Amino acid sequence: MGQPEEEHRKQPDITPLELVSVAPHHSRNDTPLLDAIHSPTDFRHFSDEQLKTLARETRQEMIRIVSQTGGHLGAGLGVVELSVALHAVFETPRDRLIWDVGHQCYPHKILTGRRDMMEKLRQGGGTSGFTKRSESEYDPFGAGHSSTSISAGLGMAAARDLTGKDSHIIAVIGDGAMTAGMAYEAMNHAGDLKSRLIVVLNDNRMSIAPPTGALSHYLSDIVSSTPYITARNIGKKLTKILPEPLQKAARRAEETARAALGGGTIFEELGFYYVGPVDGHDLDHLLPVLRNLRDSKHQGPILLHVVTQKGKGYRPAEIAPDKMHGVAKFDVVTGAQFRPRSNLPAYTKVFAQELIRQAGTDDKIIGITAAMPGGTGMDLFAVEYPERMYDVGIAEQHAVTFAAGMASEGCKPFIALYSTFLQRAYDQVVHDVALQNLPVRFIIDRAGLVGADGATHAGSFDTAYLGCLPNFVLMAPSDEAELIHMVATAAAYDKGPIALRFPRGNGVGVPLPERGEILPIGKGKIVSTNHPSSPSFYPSLHASCVQSMDYTDKPCNDEKKENESIALLSYGTRLQECEKAALVLQAHGKIVTVADARFAKPLDEELIRYLVTHHTHLLTIEDGSIGGFGSYVLEYLARTDLLDGRCRVRTMHLPDRFIDHDTPDRQYQDAGLTAEDILHHCT
Amino acid sequence: MGQPEEEHRKQPDITPLELVSVAPHHSRNDTPLLDAIHSPTDFRHFSDEQLKTLARETRQEMIRIVSQTGGHLGAGLGVVELSVALHAVFETPRDRLIWDVGHQCYPHKILTGRRDMMEKLRQGGGTSGFTKRSESEYDPFGAGHSSTSISAGLGMAAARDLTGKDSHIIAVIGDGAMTAGMAYEAMNHAGDLKSRLIVVLNDNRMSIAPPTGALSHYLSDIVSSTPYITARNIGKKLTKILPEPLQKAARRAEETARAALGGGTIFEELGFYYVGPVDGHDLDHLLPVLRNLRDSKHQGPILLHVVTQKGKGYRPAEIAPDKMHGVAKFDVVTGAQFRPRSNLPAYTKVFAQELIRQAGTDDKIIGITAAMPGGTGMDLFAVEYPERMYDVGIAEQHAVTFAAGMASEGCKPFIALYSTFLQRAYDQVVHDVALQNLPVRFIIDRAGLVGADGATHAGSFDTAYLGCLPNFVLMAPSDEAELIHMVATAAAYDKGPIALRFPRGNGVGVPLPERGEILPIGKGKIVSTNHPSSPSFYPSLHASCVQSMDYTDKPCNDEKKENESIALLSYGTRLQECEKAALVLQAHGKIVTVADARFAKPLDEELIRYLVTHHTHLLTIEDGSIGGFGSYVLEYLARTDLLDGRCRVRTMHLPDRFIDHDTPDRQYQDAGLTAEDILHHCT
Repeated sequence: MGQPEEEHRKQPDITPLELVSVAPHHSRNDTPLLDAIHSPTDFRHFSDEQLKTLARETRQEMIRIVSQTGGHLGAGLGVVELSVALHAVFETPRDRLIWDVGHQCYPHKILTGRRDMMEKLRQGGGTSGFTKRSESEYDPFGAGHSSTSISAGLGMAAARDLTGKDSHIIAVIGDGAMTAGMAYEAMNHAGDLKSRLIVVLNDNRMSIAPPTGALSHYLSDIVSSTPYITARNIGKKLTKILPEPLQKAARRAEETARAALGGGTIFEELGFYYVGPVDGHDLDHLLPVLRNLRDSKHQGPILLHVVTQKGKGYRPAEIAPDKMHGVAKFDVVTGAQFRPRSNLPAYTKVFAQELIRQAGTDDKIIGITAAMPGGTGMDLFAVEYPERMYDVGIAEQHAVTFAAGMASEGCKPFIALYSTFLQRAYDQVVHDVALQNLPVRFIIDRAGLVGADGATHAGSFDTAYLGCLPNFVLMAPSDEAELIHMVATAAAYDKGPIALRFPRGNGVGVPLPERGEILPIGKGKIVSTNHPSSPSFYPSLHASCVQSMDYTDKPCNDEKKENESIALLSYGTRLQECEKAALVLQAHGKIVTVADARFAKPLDEELIRYLVTHHTHLLTIEDGSIGGFGSYVLEYLARTDLLDGRCRVRTMHLPDRFIDHDTPDRQYQDAGLTAEDILHHCT
Repeated sequence: MGQPEEEHRKQPDITPLELVSVAPHHSRNDTPLLDAIHSPTDFRHFSDEQLKTLARETRQEMIRIVSQTGGHLGAGLGVVELSVALHAVFETPRDRLIWDVGHQCYPHKILTGRRDMMEKLRQGGGTSGFTKRSESEYDPFGAGHSSTSISAGLGMAAARDLTGKDSHIIAVIGDGAMTAGMAYEAMNHAGDLKSRLIVVLNDNRMSIAPPTGALSHYLSDIVSSTPYITARNIGKKLTKILPEPLQKAARRAEETARAALGGGTIFEELGFYYVGPVDGHDLDHLLPVLRNLRDSKHQGPILLHVVTQKGKGYRPAEIAPDKMHGVAKFDVVTGAQFRPRSNLPAYTKVFAQELIRQAGTDDKIIGITAAMPGGTGMDLFAVEYPERMYDVGIAEQHAVTFAAGMASEGCKPFIALYSTFLQRAYDQVVHDVALQNLPVRFIIDRAGLVGADGATHAGSFDTAYLGCLPNFVLMAPSDEAELIHMVATAAAYDKGPIALRFPRGNGVGVPLPERGEILPIGKGKIVSTNHPSSPSFYPSLHASCVQSMDYTDKPCNDEKKENESIALLSYGTRLQECEKAALVLQAHGKIVTVADARFAKPLDEELIRYLVTHHTHLLTIEDGSIGGFGSYVLEYLARTDLLDGRCRVRTMHLPDRFIDHDTPDRQYQDAGLTAEDILHHCT
């Protein structure tokens, strides 16, 4: 149980839009009740029996839609009844309903006027795969990362109390998301603040193994030892919060007594009124409990523990909830997914294979991740070295300092996280790793734009937020062969923290080396050039292990402007776009040098100096934000008087806005980081 | 109880080194046992009675030292017996002893060979105020931020298990630090991993009010309802973990049963074996409990709940533990502190007064902080508007998303944190605030170098890590009058997130405006100039509210290099250094323009364009890292073809290394950000 549920963390590395479009035709279901629903007000008057029918139709419709678009199946199917019940009982959008990690929101979206938009789910211009404030008033708080809902809900509750309103605030959070420290901080505050807030713990523990964390065991114990709340015993269970308000003092005394007796759950100890467990698929139980909570006058936070089954109601997803968590288009009858076929190796897998190879000869290598074993390849590492892989759950802060602790004892921890989630552990990176100069290896997956997951999951900022930190070495491979070398380099580098970032998706098909070789720290390479003055600067494409290159030729400062010569300096996989652009430029008779920086920190100053003194244009490019590689190049050039106007310098990086979900290719077009954009900058 | 204990969070804004040196002479105490101690091995053979004497001498010595140096008094005094007992019972440094938030480490430092170094505590070249790996092998993990010790300790424990060692790992953590999500994440993992780890919960709850968070209430209930473990009942309490190891299966069954019965504490529910509470000042109880824990064969994490009194053994600190938490030099007899007198207003107070003023006419203004009410001025706000100030405890992640939740409901939250602690909430800033473009106001105190607290507390990176985020507006006042305007600007700006950063310490003594005026977003100002071509660009020093300036004069591109003209463009309070440098340069006949950027984002492009086209040198300066303001200026100039070699551009920022504790002035000398350094760059 308890495996964290964030889609991205579990989803195999596929982008539905890239699939071959051979999904069979799925006829629309017969959904007469749902067809008449445009907003929750349309079913709020329904009988319980009608709501059950609506739930059935919603489930059918969701399966149909996702079979055609791909997306998150299991999480949404688990909360169909809960979605219907919450919207039926509460006055959304006036009452605020917050879905933690939006990927469970598909039934919610279907029921709140976005059924048609779902036909283009996670596609450019279509509905987001997560809740999103700009999309609907029914999404009061967007979420793609987990464990934020209680904090956001408590903020809304506090605002409501201050302004004298009386709306309900409901946060629905999974058991996996509960393991994050942020959820605990919010509960600790909620228990103190005593604001009215309903937290629905969506516990789909039974569907995924293995468990992560002590809390999971704990929830498991509760569910296995406590009978479900049924219609018959609801009154008994809720009796304490249902009567007319007692005198405040009396109630407090009762609460204190309950807490002091210590018989409660962890949630009661944190000041919540615990109700549960309830069968989350049985509207006969769910509806009366929710109505009672709605009508109760209890002042303070309530935790409703709902037990659901991931993938509920769709047999293929029920029996393989992990495989049907994030899906490609699939055949509804068989559950068979139409996955893209590619002969290109995924970066994630290339990383994992090289790490496994390195670990074979170095028993100090350790793998760490935070609820992303599949997404980061750490699951493969765990198969080979189960005792040397730690999945700490959704707990990036702990993961990083745990890694620092291991490094302080001489281990070589490789901590593999998505760029967007490393943000969760920034202070730990600064204070525990960089400041102490501990050799923790950061493997930053999903760097750059990530496609269908959109802005919440973009890995845009890591170069900027890590590059400003002393002691760090930053690398980015330009292809999968380079990745192998960089894993080897990280394994060998033991002087301090080192990070490497690579994008979601597949490599480019270059030949892979037998095993990685150790790169010289802070040295880039020239990938191609037709510069007449420097044949010696033309190492072959495979010269990845050249220890040092001699860039000491006299700068050709006397080159005339009309003889334009262009240097393209790439950090990361935009190198392919540089090479495409270079071909076009060369075809137009230009002198072009393409270089792979490999390192954003330390910079290859010798290479940069050569490029800027031998070319009339220098263009840097990276799939990251401002304040990263390009900025460091400019800073170096300014510091060394190389911004003398003889070489026109430009930096290309992600624009200063968030990029919505789409295919990665179209996202990069939107961002202006394609070969065409490079050409545009060169003319 | 339970107020977080991080020094910086509570410490009044004083830097001991800046005090008038009128502290009376304190003669060295008579400490015969302590005088013979050079390391813990020297007292490990002591009798319990001798250890008691050693504790008394250590306490005396600590009071004497801190009375002469200033520093953290209360926390250390609370753990004198614990420090003696831990080092006596465990084989440090072979056994790893980690002090969460190093400020409780003074007795530990005295006992581990650093007594003499303490004479220059927190001073340049002297011992750090926190634990520090580079300082001693007895400091296996440094800490200035709270709540990291369990994660680090668990990492060490995992490393020990993998390498087949058998050392003990002990983490000492305060009840305040326990409220951070990171500690919970670590406990959740520890309960799952079942590694041997001893967590000592140093609960000094009785000494500080008011409580923060539900956990505090909970600990309070435990202590008030449970008798202390005494020598007589130790056996009974520890019986379960003392016998020879049972069969693994049997033990697991017992643990599961205990957990399922739900009679345990929150710590037991998270998989810890809970022992306590124990009187942390009674060595007769502490020593046998620690010896038993050391000798127990229990596999898994143990939580020892120790109750201590902050300031124990020094009457003035016992009766006013908050006032004697972080102290200046003081008179040992009376406890009177020798605080620096200054007629200059502290930035923190100026901020608080303006916020209070703004809140008087805008009831949507809310104050939020995370266990730093005194340090951020939110305590003053709370006096005026108690119902509108939220102190969430050591829980920055929650604090930021709580603020986002309030903003989503139309409130105007001002969240005041130190720069270094905002790092704890980076993902929340990105994902919950920036991405949703919610108007949360970030008040970033202690930006730049912070003096005696050293590298762990430096606010070096916030411009870099916030400036890369879309939607953010970033401001930094150059003096306290500017701060007032910026608070007003933040109150008025409701289009998205806005942040302002200011340093620790006092303003410069400029006249203060009656109330803040709203600045035009993204507009800087020229502070002084003797540029002959542009008298119109000489707004007075107080022209802080000029809505727009006309920089459209024709650029004087034909100026000859020999007529050097220098533009100094400052972001933040380094402006004073620019003005000092400008006077010198002008005295040497140079043309100098000093400008205050006010905003790092959006940049005042018009101003920058004017400066770079009318001067032969442009120098930016800021008290932050690379990747911040200066980098953005360079990026702008590159983007707009202004790096044409006619103006030499330099950026001055913090160097790429951590700066050790010292006075702020000497730290800035070390960093190369003084007027002298500016002059050096201009010649």
